[in-house]
Amino acid sequence: MTDNNKPVTAAMIIIGNEVLSGRTQDKNLAFVAKMLGEIGVDMQEARVIPDELDIVVATVNDMRARYDYIFTSGGIGPTHDDITADCIAAAFGVKLEKHPLAMQALQAHYDAQEAEFNEARQRMARIPEGASLIENPVSTAPGFKIGNVHVMAGVPKIMQAMMENILPTLKGGEKLSSVTITSNIPEGSIAAEMGGLQEKFPEVNIGLYPFYSPEGAGVSVVARGRDTAQLAEVEAAVKAHLADIGAQIVERPASIAAT
Amino acid sequence: MTDNNKPVTAAMIIIGNEVLSGRTQDKNLAFVAKMLGEIGVDMQEARVIPDELDIVVATVNDMRARYDYIFTSGGIGPTHDDITADCIAAAFGVKLEKHPLAMQALQAHYDAQEAEFNEARQRMARIPEGASLIENPVSTAPGFKIGNVHVMAGVPKIMQAMMENILPTLKGGEKLSSVTITSNIPEGSIAAEMGGLQEKFPEVNIGLYPFYSPEGAGVSVVARGRDTAQLAEVEAAVKAHLADIGAQIVERPASIAAT
Repeated sequence: MTDNNKPVTAAMIIIGNEVLSGRTQDKNLAFVAKMLGEIGVDMQEARVIPDELDIVVATVNDMRARYDYIFTSGGIGPTHDDITADCIAAAFGVKLEKHPLAMQALQAHYDAQEAEFNEARQRMARIPEGASLIENPVSTAPGFKIGNVHVMAGVPKIMQAMMENILPTLKGGEKLSSVTITSNIPEGSIAAEMGGLQEKFPEVNIGLYPFYSPEGAGVSVVARGRDTAQLAEVEAAVKAHLADIGAQIVERPASIAAT
Repeated sequence: MTDNNKPVTAAMIIIGNEVLSGRTQDKNLAFVAKMLGEIGVDMQEARVIPDELDIVVATVNDMRARYDYIFTSGGIGPTHDDITADCIAAAFGVKLEKHPLAMQALQAHYDAQEAEFNEARQRMARIPEGASLIENPVSTAPGFKIGNVHVMAGVPKIMQAMMENILPTLKGGEKLSSVTITSNIPEGSIAAEMGGLQEKFPEVNIGLYPFYSPEGAGVSVVARGRDTAQLAEVEAAVKAHLADIGAQIVERPASIAAT
Protein backbone atom coordinates (compact mmCIF):
# COMPACT_ATOMS: atom_id res chain seq x y z
CA MET A 1 0.00 0.00 0.00
CA THR A 2 1.10 3.57 -0.55
CA ASP A 3 0.96 6.01 2.35
CA ASN A 4 -2.62 7.03 1.65
CA ASN A 5 -3.65 3.37 1.71
CA LYS A 6 -4.58 3.09 -1.96
CA PRO A 7 -3.45 -0.01 -3.85
CA VAL A 8 -0.49 0.39 -6.21
CA THR A 9 -1.82 0.38 -9.80
CA ALA A 10 -0.45 -0.44 -13.22
CA ALA A 11 -1.56 -0.47 -16.84
CA MET A 12 -0.06 -2.00 -19.95
CA ILE A 13 0.15 -0.63 -23.49
CA ILE A 14 0.76 -3.28 -26.16
CA ILE A 15 2.03 -1.53 -29.27
CA GLY A 16 1.90 -3.38 -32.57
CA ASN A 17 -0.09 -3.81 -35.76
CA GLU A 18 0.77 -7.51 -35.71
CA VAL A 19 -1.11 -8.03 -32.42
CA LEU A 20 -4.15 -6.10 -33.66
CA SER A 21 -4.27 -8.06 -36.92
CA GLY A 22 -4.22 -11.36 -35.01
CA ARG A 23 -0.97 -12.39 -36.65
CA THR A 24 0.79 -12.40 -33.28
CA GLN A 25 -0.81 -13.71 -30.08
CA ASP A 26 0.10 -11.41 -27.19
CA LYS A 27 1.55 -13.25 -24.22
CA ASN A 28 3.10 -10.28 -22.45
CA LEU A 29 0.04 -8.97 -20.60
CA ALA A 30 -0.48 -12.21 -18.67
CA PHE A 31 3.23 -12.44 -17.80
CA VAL A 32 3.51 -8.85 -16.57
CA ALA A 33 0.19 -9.00 -14.68
CA LYS A 34 1.17 -12.16 -12.82
CA MET A 35 4.61 -10.84 -11.94
CA LEU A 36 3.16 -7.56 -10.64
CA GLY A 37 0.48 -9.43 -8.71
CA GLU A 38 3.21 -11.19 -6.76
CA ILE A 39 4.45 -7.87 -5.35
CA GLY A 40 1.01 -6.39 -4.79
CA VAL A 41 0.72 -4.16 -7.87
CA ASP A 42 -2.73 -4.39 -9.54
CA MET A 43 -2.96 -4.42 -13.34
CA GLN A 44 -6.07 -2.32 -13.95
CA GLU A 45 -6.22 -1.81 -17.71
CA ALA A 46 -4.49 -2.86 -20.91
CA ARG A 47 -4.72 -1.44 -24.41
CA VAL A 48 -3.57 -2.82 -27.72
CA ILE A 49 -2.83 -0.02 -30.19
CA PRO A 50 -1.22 0.32 -33.63
CA ASP A 51 2.28 1.65 -34.43
CA GLU A 52 0.99 5.18 -35.05
CA LEU A 53 2.64 8.19 -33.47
CA ASP A 54 -0.44 10.26 -32.57
CA ILE A 55 -2.22 7.27 -31.05
CA VAL A 56 0.77 6.09 -29.01
CA VAL A 57 1.49 9.60 -27.69
CA ALA A 58 -2.14 10.22 -26.69
CA THR A 59 -2.49 6.79 -25.06
CA VAL A 60 0.75 7.10 -23.06
CA ASN A 61 -0.09 10.60 -21.83
CA ASP A 62 -3.62 9.61 -20.86
CA MET A 63 -2.59 6.47 -19.01
CA ARG A 64 0.59 7.62 -17.26
CA ALA A 65 -1.45 10.27 -15.45
CA ARG A 66 -3.96 7.69 -14.16
CA TYR A 67 -1.82 4.76 -12.97
CA ASP A 68 1.24 4.40 -10.75
CA TYR A 69 3.16 2.34 -13.29
CA ILE A 70 2.91 1.98 -17.08
CA PHE A 71 4.49 -0.88 -19.03
CA THR A 72 4.73 -0.87 -22.82
CA SER A 73 5.75 -3.73 -25.09
CA GLY A 74 6.73 -3.59 -28.74
CA GLY A 75 8.23 -1.22 -31.29
CA ILE A 76 11.81 -0.76 -30.07
CA GLY A 77 13.63 -2.76 -32.76
CA PRO A 78 15.81 -1.49 -35.62
CA THR A 79 13.23 -1.09 -38.38
CA HIS A 80 11.24 1.83 -39.80
CA ASP A 81 8.04 0.57 -38.13
CA ASP A 82 9.68 0.57 -34.67
CA ILE A 83 8.61 4.03 -33.53
CA THR A 84 7.96 3.55 -29.81
CA ALA A 85 11.06 5.49 -28.65
CA ASP A 86 10.08 8.42 -30.90
CA CYS A 87 6.55 8.31 -29.46
CA ILE A 88 7.68 8.25 -25.82
CA ALA A 89 10.08 11.16 -26.39
CA ALA A 90 7.21 13.10 -27.99
CA ALA A 91 4.86 12.19 -25.13
CA PHE A 92 7.33 13.56 -22.57
CA GLY A 93 8.36 16.52 -24.76
CA VAL A 94 12.06 15.59 -24.71
CA LYS A 95 14.71 14.90 -27.34
CA LEU A 96 15.61 11.42 -28.57
CA GLU A 97 19.38 10.90 -28.47
CA LYS A 98 21.82 8.08 -29.06
CA HIS A 99 22.66 6.98 -25.53
CA PRO A 100 26.45 6.51 -25.06
CA LEU A 101 26.12 3.35 -22.93
CA ALA A 102 23.61 1.81 -25.33
CA MET A 103 25.85 2.65 -28.29
CA GLN A 104 28.83 1.08 -26.54
CA ALA A 105 26.97 -2.13 -25.59
CA LEU A 106 25.48 -2.55 -29.07
CA GLN A 107 28.84 -1.85 -30.78
CA ALA A 108 30.43 -4.61 -28.64
CA HIS A 109 27.49 -6.93 -29.35
CA TYR A 110 27.78 -6.59 -33.14
CA ASP A 111 31.60 -6.63 -33.07
CA ALA A 112 31.42 -9.98 -31.27
CA GLN A 113 29.13 -11.29 -34.03
CA GLU A 114 31.32 -9.74 -36.74
CA ALA A 115 28.17 -7.98 -37.93
CA GLU A 116 27.93 -4.37 -39.06
CA PHE A 117 26.64 -1.88 -36.45
CA ASN A 118 24.72 -0.08 -39.17
CA GLU A 119 22.44 2.97 -39.00
CA ALA A 120 19.30 0.81 -38.59
CA ARG A 121 20.85 -0.99 -35.61
CA GLN A 122 21.98 2.34 -34.14
CA ARG A 123 18.28 3.30 -34.03
CA MET A 124 18.03 0.92 -31.06
CA ALA A 125 20.42 3.15 -29.05
CA ARG A 126 18.09 6.16 -29.40
CA ILE A 127 16.73 6.86 -25.91
CA PRO A 128 14.61 9.82 -24.71
CA GLU A 129 16.66 12.42 -22.82
CA GLY A 130 16.53 11.77 -19.08
CA ALA A 131 15.49 8.12 -19.39
CA SER A 132 17.38 5.33 -17.64
CA LEU A 133 18.24 2.10 -19.46
CA ILE A 134 16.64 -1.31 -18.85
CA GLU A 135 19.13 -4.06 -19.54
CA ASN A 136 18.44 -6.69 -22.20
CA PRO A 137 20.52 -9.81 -21.56
CA VAL A 138 19.02 -11.60 -24.59
CA SER A 139 19.83 -9.33 -27.53
CA THR A 140 21.52 -6.27 -25.89
CA ALA A 141 19.27 -3.50 -27.31
CA PRO A 142 17.97 -1.90 -24.12
CA GLY A 143 14.54 -0.84 -22.96
CA PHE A 144 14.22 2.31 -20.92
CA LYS A 145 12.31 3.98 -18.12
CA ILE A 146 11.16 7.59 -18.13
CA GLY A 147 8.89 8.95 -15.41
CA ASN A 148 6.59 6.07 -14.49
CA VAL A 149 6.73 4.52 -17.99
CA HIS A 150 8.71 1.32 -18.62
CA VAL A 151 9.39 0.71 -22.31
CA MET A 152 10.12 -2.90 -23.26
CA ALA A 153 10.56 -5.12 -26.30
CA GLY A 154 7.66 -7.09 -27.76
CA VAL A 155 9.44 -10.44 -28.21
CA PRO A 156 8.30 -12.37 -25.11
CA LYS A 157 11.63 -13.75 -24.00
CA ILE A 158 13.30 -10.34 -24.22
CA MET A 159 10.39 -8.64 -22.48
CA GLN A 160 10.46 -11.24 -19.70
CA ALA A 161 14.17 -10.65 -19.10
CA MET A 162 13.55 -6.90 -18.97
CA MET A 163 10.74 -7.39 -16.42
CA GLU A 164 13.12 -9.36 -14.21
CA ASN A 165 15.40 -6.32 -14.21
CA ILE A 166 12.56 -3.87 -13.58
CA LEU A 167 10.88 -5.78 -10.74
CA PRO A 168 13.36 -4.89 -7.94
CA THR A 169 12.91 -1.16 -8.77
CA LEU A 170 9.13 -1.20 -8.22
CA LYS A 171 7.37 -0.30 -5.02
CA GLY A 172 4.81 -3.02 -4.36
CA GLY A 173 1.60 -2.77 -2.43
CA GLU A 174 0.04 -5.08 0.09
CA LYS A 175 -0.09 -8.44 -1.62
CA LEU A 176 -3.36 -9.94 -2.74
CA SER A 177 -3.77 -13.52 -1.63
CA SER A 178 -6.04 -15.95 -3.41
CA VAL A 179 -7.63 -19.34 -2.95
CA THR A 180 -9.02 -21.47 -5.77
CA ILE A 181 -11.61 -24.19 -5.23
CA THR A 182 -12.52 -26.27 -8.28
CA SER A 183 -15.48 -28.59 -8.67
CA ASN A 184 -16.85 -30.66 -11.55
CA ILE A 185 -20.31 -29.08 -11.37
CA PRO A 186 -21.93 -26.49 -13.65
CA GLU A 187 -21.33 -22.84 -12.75
CA GLY A 188 -25.05 -22.11 -12.66
CA SER A 189 -25.69 -24.61 -9.87
CA ILE A 190 -23.75 -22.53 -7.30
CA ALA A 191 -24.09 -19.03 -8.79
CA ALA A 192 -26.82 -17.81 -6.43
CA GLU A 193 -25.04 -19.05 -3.29
CA MET A 194 -21.74 -17.50 -4.42
CA GLY A 195 -23.52 -14.20 -5.11
CA GLY A 196 -24.80 -14.26 -1.53
CA LEU A 197 -21.30 -14.99 -0.25
CA GLN A 198 -19.93 -12.04 -2.26
CA GLU A 199 -22.49 -9.75 -0.58
CA LYS A 200 -21.46 -11.03 2.84
CA PHE A 201 -17.74 -10.43 2.11
CA PRO A 202 -17.57 -7.20 0.07
CA GLU A 203 -13.80 -6.84 0.55
CA VAL A 204 -13.06 -10.23 -0.99
CA ASN A 205 -13.33 -10.53 -4.79
CA ILE A 206 -15.14 -13.80 -5.58
CA GLY A 207 -15.02 -14.88 -9.24
CA LEU A 208 -16.49 -17.98 -10.89
CA TYR A 209 -14.68 -19.37 -13.92
CA PRO A 210 -16.35 -22.17 -15.83
CA PHE A 211 -14.20 -24.48 -17.91
CA TYR A 212 -14.62 -27.11 -20.60
CA SER A 213 -11.86 -29.61 -21.20
CA PRO A 214 -11.37 -33.13 -22.51
CA GLU A 215 -11.19 -34.26 -18.85
CA GLY A 216 -14.64 -32.80 -18.14
CA ALA A 217 -16.36 -29.52 -17.38
CA GLY A 218 -16.70 -27.64 -14.13
CA VAL A 219 -16.13 -24.37 -12.37
CA SER A 220 -13.34 -22.80 -10.35
CA VAL A 221 -14.24 -20.39 -7.56
CA VAL A 222 -11.39 -17.92 -7.09
CA ALA A 223 -11.45 -15.66 -4.03
CA ARG A 224 -8.91 -12.85 -3.83
CA GLY A 225 -8.29 -10.31 -1.13
CA ARG A 226 -5.80 -8.67 1.21
CA ASP A 227 -7.27 -10.04 4.45
CA THR A 228 -6.23 -13.68 4.79
CA ALA A 229 -8.61 -14.32 7.72
CA GLN A 230 -11.57 -13.27 5.56
CA LEU A 231 -10.24 -15.38 2.68
CA ALA A 232 -10.12 -18.40 4.97
CA GLU A 233 -13.75 -17.79 5.98
CA VAL A 234 -14.77 -17.58 2.31
CA GLU A 235 -12.84 -20.75 1.48
CA ALA A 236 -14.54 -22.62 4.34
CA ALA A 237 -17.98 -21.36 3.25
CA VAL A 238 -17.42 -22.44 -0.37
CA LYS A 239 -16.26 -25.89 0.69
CA ALA A 240 -19.17 -26.26 3.10
CA HIS A 241 -21.65 -25.36 0.37
CA LEU A 242 -20.08 -27.80 -2.09
CA ALA A 243 -20.31 -30.54 0.56
CA ASP A 244 -23.97 -29.62 1.23
CA ILE A 245 -24.92 -30.16 -2.40
CA GLY A 246 -22.83 -33.32 -2.68
CA ALA A 247 -20.25 -31.81 -5.11
CA GLN A 248 -16.67 -33.04 -5.30
CA ILE A 249 -13.62 -30.81 -5.02
CA VAL A 250 -11.26 -31.68 -7.89
CA GLU A 251 -8.00 -30.56 -9.44
CA ARG A 252 -8.42 -28.05 -12.24
CA PRO A 253 -7.57 -30.02 -15.41
CA ALA A 254 -4.09 -29.14 -16.68
CA SER A 255 -5.34 -28.92 -20.26
CA ILE A 256 -7.36 -25.80 -19.53
CA ALA A 257 -5.03 -24.16 -17.05
CA ALA A 258 -3.99 -21.55 -19.60
CA THR A 259 -7.32 -20.82 -21.30
CA MET B 1 -15.03 -0.19 -48.45
CA THR B 2 -17.97 1.91 -47.35
CA ASP B 3 -19.44 4.41 -49.78
CA ASN B 4 -17.11 7.19 -48.73
CA ASN B 5 -14.14 4.92 -49.37
CA LYS B 6 -12.99 4.63 -45.76
CA PRO B 7 -11.96 1.20 -44.49
CA VAL B 8 -14.44 -0.63 -42.26
CA THR B 9 -13.16 -0.50 -38.68
CA ALA B 10 -13.60 -2.55 -35.53
CA ALA B 11 -12.48 -2.54 -31.90
CA MET B 12 -12.62 -5.18 -29.20
CA ILE B 13 -13.38 -4.85 -25.49
CA ILE B 14 -12.19 -7.77 -23.37
CA ILE B 15 -14.07 -7.66 -20.08
CA GLY B 16 -12.69 -9.63 -17.17
CA ASN B 17 -10.65 -9.36 -13.98
CA GLU B 18 -9.20 -12.79 -14.73
CA VAL B 19 -7.55 -11.54 -17.95
CA LEU B 20 -6.15 -8.44 -16.20
CA SER B 21 -4.72 -10.50 -13.35
CA GLY B 22 -2.95 -12.81 -15.80
CA ARG B 23 -4.88 -15.82 -14.55
CA THR B 24 -6.49 -16.27 -17.97
CA GLN B 25 -4.61 -15.82 -21.24
CA ASP B 26 -6.86 -14.01 -23.74
CA LYS B 27 -7.12 -15.80 -27.07
CA ASN B 28 -10.21 -14.05 -28.37
CA LEU B 29 -8.61 -10.91 -29.79
CA ALA B 30 -6.40 -12.82 -32.22
CA PHE B 31 -9.32 -15.02 -33.32
CA VAL B 32 -11.71 -12.12 -33.92
CA ALA B 33 -9.06 -9.96 -35.62
CA LYS B 34 -8.09 -12.72 -38.06
CA MET B 35 -11.71 -13.52 -38.91
CA LEU B 36 -12.52 -9.86 -39.52
CA GLY B 37 -9.37 -9.42 -41.59
CA GLU B 38 -10.66 -12.08 -43.97
CA ILE B 39 -13.68 -9.93 -44.83
CA GLY B 40 -11.80 -6.64 -44.93
CA VAL B 41 -12.68 -5.25 -41.50
CA ASP B 42 -9.66 -3.72 -39.70
CA MET B 43 -9.23 -4.27 -35.96
CA GLN B 44 -7.90 -0.89 -34.82
CA GLU B 45 -7.87 -1.06 -31.02
CA ALA B 46 -8.47 -3.46 -28.15
CA ARG B 47 -8.93 -2.81 -24.46
CA VAL B 48 -8.86 -5.15 -21.50
CA ILE B 49 -10.95 -3.78 -18.64
CA PRO B 50 -12.27 -5.05 -15.28
CA ASP B 51 -15.82 -6.18 -14.48
CA GLU B 52 -16.80 -2.74 -13.16
CA LEU B 53 -20.00 -1.04 -14.28
CA ASP B 54 -18.76 2.54 -14.64
CA ILE B 55 -15.65 1.49 -16.55
CA VAL B 56 -17.50 -0.84 -18.93
CA VAL B 57 -20.21 1.76 -19.66
CA ALA B 58 -17.70 4.55 -20.33
CA THR B 59 -15.51 2.31 -22.50
CA VAL B 60 -18.41 1.01 -24.60
CA ASN B 61 -19.84 4.49 -25.15
CA ASP B 62 -16.46 5.95 -26.08
CA MET B 63 -15.57 3.18 -28.51
CA ARG B 64 -18.91 2.52 -30.20
CA ALA B 65 -18.90 6.14 -31.40
CA ARG B 66 -15.45 5.79 -32.98
CA TYR B 67 -15.54 2.42 -34.79
CA ASP B 68 -17.93 0.74 -37.22
CA TYR B 69 -18.15 -2.47 -35.17
CA ILE B 70 -17.51 -3.26 -31.51
CA PHE B 71 -17.03 -6.79 -30.17
CA THR B 72 -17.00 -7.59 -26.46
CA SER B 73 -16.04 -10.84 -24.77
CA GLY B 74 -16.71 -11.94 -21.22
CA GLY B 75 -19.15 -11.38 -18.40
CA ILE B 76 -22.39 -12.90 -19.74
CA GLY B 77 -22.55 -16.01 -17.55
CA PRO B 78 -24.90 -16.79 -14.65
CA THR B 79 -22.89 -15.45 -11.70
CA HIS B 80 -22.90 -12.23 -9.69
CA ASP B 81 -19.68 -11.07 -11.36
CA ASP B 82 -21.19 -11.40 -14.86
CA ILE B 83 -22.39 -7.84 -15.31
CA THR B 84 -21.80 -7.17 -19.01
CA ALA B 85 -25.51 -7.25 -19.99
CA ASP B 86 -26.31 -4.75 -17.21
CA CYS B 87 -23.46 -2.52 -18.44
CA ILE B 88 -24.54 -2.59 -22.09
CA ALA B 89 -28.15 -1.78 -21.17
CA ALA B 90 -26.87 1.15 -19.08
CA ALA B 91 -24.59 2.31 -21.92
CA PHE B 92 -27.54 2.40 -24.34
CA GLY B 93 -29.98 3.76 -21.73
CA VAL B 94 -32.44 0.87 -22.17
CA LYS B 95 -34.03 -1.68 -19.84
CA LEU B 96 -32.66 -5.18 -19.29
CA GLU B 97 -35.44 -7.77 -19.71
CA LYS B 98 -35.74 -11.53 -19.76
CA HIS B 99 -35.98 -12.27 -23.48
CA PRO B 100 -38.79 -14.78 -24.24
CA LEU B 101 -36.79 -16.71 -26.88
CA ALA B 102 -33.74 -16.89 -24.65
CA MET B 103 -35.89 -18.06 -21.70
CA GLN B 104 -37.47 -20.74 -23.88
CA ALA B 105 -34.15 -22.03 -25.26
CA LEU B 106 -32.51 -22.10 -21.83
CA GLN B 107 -35.53 -23.81 -20.24
CA ALA B 108 -35.33 -26.54 -22.90
CA HIS B 109 -31.56 -26.81 -22.44
CA TYR B 110 -31.79 -27.37 -18.67
CA ASP B 111 -34.86 -29.61 -18.98
CA ALA B 112 -32.87 -31.86 -21.33
CA GLN B 113 -30.10 -32.05 -18.71
CA GLU B 114 -32.64 -32.56 -15.92
CA ALA B 115 -31.05 -29.55 -14.24
CA GLU B 116 -32.89 -26.75 -12.49
CA PHE B 117 -33.42 -23.57 -14.53
CA ASN B 118 -32.78 -21.50 -11.42
CA GLU B 119 -32.70 -17.73 -10.93
CA ALA B 120 -28.92 -17.53 -11.53
CA ARG B 121 -29.30 -19.32 -14.86
CA GLN B 122 -32.24 -17.09 -15.78
CA ARG B 123 -29.81 -14.14 -15.51
CA MET B 124 -28.39 -15.36 -18.84
CA ALA B 125 -31.72 -14.63 -20.55
CA ARG B 126 -31.57 -10.95 -19.54
CA ILE B 127 -31.07 -8.98 -22.77
CA PRO B 128 -31.14 -5.19 -23.30
CA GLU B 129 -34.41 -4.00 -24.83
CA GLY B 130 -34.17 -3.78 -28.61
CA ALA B 131 -31.16 -6.12 -28.88
CA SER B 132 -31.15 -9.13 -31.20
CA LEU B 133 -29.87 -12.51 -30.03
CA ILE B 134 -26.63 -14.18 -31.13
CA GLU B 135 -27.00 -17.95 -31.07
CA ASN B 136 -24.76 -20.08 -28.88
CA PRO B 137 -24.66 -23.67 -30.18
CA VAL B 138 -22.23 -24.74 -27.43
CA SER B 139 -24.05 -23.93 -24.20
CA THR B 140 -27.30 -22.21 -25.35
CA ALA B 141 -27.01 -18.94 -23.35
CA PRO B 142 -27.08 -16.34 -26.14
CA GLY B 143 -24.98 -13.32 -26.89
CA PHE B 144 -26.66 -10.26 -28.32
CA LYS B 145 -26.24 -7.34 -30.67
CA ILE B 146 -27.42 -3.81 -29.97
CA GLY B 147 -26.52 -0.94 -32.27
CA ASN B 148 -23.03 -1.71 -33.55
CA VAL B 149 -22.04 -3.63 -30.39
CA HIS B 150 -21.75 -7.43 -30.43
CA VAL B 151 -21.72 -8.96 -26.96
CA MET B 152 -20.17 -12.43 -26.69
CA ALA B 153 -19.06 -14.98 -24.12
CA GLY B 154 -15.47 -15.11 -22.86
CA VAL B 155 -14.94 -18.88 -23.10
CA PRO B 156 -13.05 -19.19 -26.42
CA LYS B 157 -15.02 -22.04 -27.95
CA ILE B 158 -18.35 -20.35 -27.22
CA MET B 159 -17.08 -17.00 -28.48
CA GLN B 160 -15.78 -18.61 -31.66
CA ALA B 161 -19.16 -20.20 -32.37
CA MET B 162 -20.85 -16.83 -31.80
CA MET B 163 -18.43 -15.13 -34.23
CA GLU B 164 -19.33 -17.72 -36.88
CA ASN B 165 -22.96 -16.63 -36.48
CA ILE B 166 -22.12 -12.92 -36.52
CA LEU B 167 -19.83 -12.96 -39.55
CA PRO B 168 -22.49 -13.20 -42.29
CA THR B 169 -24.27 -10.14 -40.80
CA LEU B 170 -21.22 -7.87 -41.13
CA LYS B 171 -20.51 -5.57 -44.03
CA GLY B 172 -16.89 -6.11 -44.99
CA GLY B 173 -14.54 -3.69 -46.65
CA GLU B 174 -12.09 -4.19 -49.45
CA LYS B 175 -9.94 -7.08 -48.36
CA LEU B 176 -6.36 -6.57 -47.31
CA SER B 177 -4.00 -8.97 -49.00
CA SER B 178 -0.63 -9.88 -47.56
CA VAL B 179 2.61 -11.56 -48.50
CA THR B 180 5.15 -12.92 -46.02
CA ILE B 181 8.80 -13.48 -46.89
CA THR B 182 10.92 -15.13 -44.21
CA SER B 183 14.70 -15.32 -44.08
CA ASN B 184 17.18 -16.65 -41.54
CA ILE B 185 19.05 -13.34 -41.26
CA PRO B 186 18.99 -10.74 -38.46
CA GLU B 187 16.32 -8.06 -38.74
CA GLY B 188 18.92 -5.28 -38.50
CA SER B 189 20.71 -6.39 -41.65
CA ILE B 190 17.78 -5.43 -43.91
CA ALA B 191 16.11 -2.72 -41.81
CA ALA B 192 17.47 0.26 -43.78
CA GLU B 193 16.57 -1.22 -47.17
CA MET B 194 13.05 -2.12 -45.97
CA GLY B 195 12.61 1.43 -44.62
CA GLY B 196 13.46 2.74 -48.09
CA LEU B 197 10.97 0.35 -49.66
CA GLN B 198 8.27 1.53 -47.24
CA GLU B 199 8.91 5.13 -48.34
CA LYS B 200 8.62 4.12 -51.98
CA PHE B 201 5.29 2.29 -51.35
CA PRO B 202 3.40 4.38 -48.79
CA GLU B 203 0.11 2.56 -49.40
CA VAL B 204 1.57 -0.84 -48.53
CA ASN B 205 2.19 -1.56 -44.85
CA ILE B 206 5.61 -3.24 -44.53
CA GLY B 207 6.36 -4.79 -41.14
CA LEU B 208 9.46 -6.68 -39.97
CA TYR B 209 8.97 -9.37 -37.35
CA PRO B 210 12.08 -10.95 -35.86
CA PHE B 211 11.80 -14.41 -34.34
CA TYR B 212 13.83 -16.71 -32.15
CA SER B 213 13.09 -20.42 -32.14
CA PRO B 214 14.83 -23.74 -31.50
CA GLU B 215 15.12 -24.08 -35.30
CA GLY B 216 17.03 -20.80 -35.56
CA ALA B 217 16.48 -17.05 -35.62
CA GLY B 218 15.46 -14.79 -38.48
CA VAL B 219 12.97 -12.23 -39.66
CA SER B 220 9.68 -12.25 -41.54
CA VAL B 221 8.85 -9.34 -43.79
CA VAL B 222 5.07 -8.96 -43.99
CA ALA B 223 3.61 -6.60 -46.58
CA ARG B 224 -0.10 -5.84 -46.43
CA GLY B 225 -2.24 -3.71 -48.68
CA ARG B 226 -5.35 -3.46 -50.85
CA ASP B 227 -3.54 -3.12 -54.19
CA THR B 228 -2.28 -6.55 -55.23
CA ALA B 229 -0.15 -5.15 -58.07
CA GLN B 230 1.76 -2.96 -55.61
CA LEU B 231 2.08 -5.91 -53.22
CA ALA B 232 3.62 -7.99 -56.02
CA GLU B 233 6.13 -5.20 -56.68
CA VAL B 234 7.05 -5.07 -52.99
CA GLU B 235 7.39 -8.87 -52.85
CA ALA B 236 9.70 -8.86 -55.88
CA ALA B 237 11.80 -6.05 -54.41
CA VAL B 238 12.19 -7.84 -51.06
CA LYS B 239 13.20 -11.10 -52.77
CA ALA B 240 15.63 -9.27 -55.05
CA HIS B 241 17.27 -7.58 -52.06
CA LEU B 242 17.58 -10.86 -50.17
CA ALA B 243 19.18 -12.44 -53.25
CA ASP B 244 21.57 -9.46 -53.55
CA ILE B 245 22.88 -9.96 -50.02
CA GLY B 246 23.04 -13.74 -50.41
CA ALA B 247 20.23 -14.45 -47.89
CA GLN B 248 18.05 -17.56 -48.10
CA ILE B 249 14.27 -17.52 -48.16
CA VAL B 250 13.03 -20.07 -45.62
CA GLU B 251 9.81 -21.35 -44.07
CA ARG B 252 8.86 -19.61 -40.86
CA PRO B 253 9.51 -22.23 -38.14
CA ALA B 254 6.25 -23.76 -36.92
CA SER B 255 7.34 -23.50 -33.30
CA ILE B 256 7.14 -19.71 -33.36
CA ALA B 257 4.12 -19.35 -35.60
CA ALA B 258 1.93 -18.30 -32.70
CA THR B 259 4.32 -16.06 -30.76
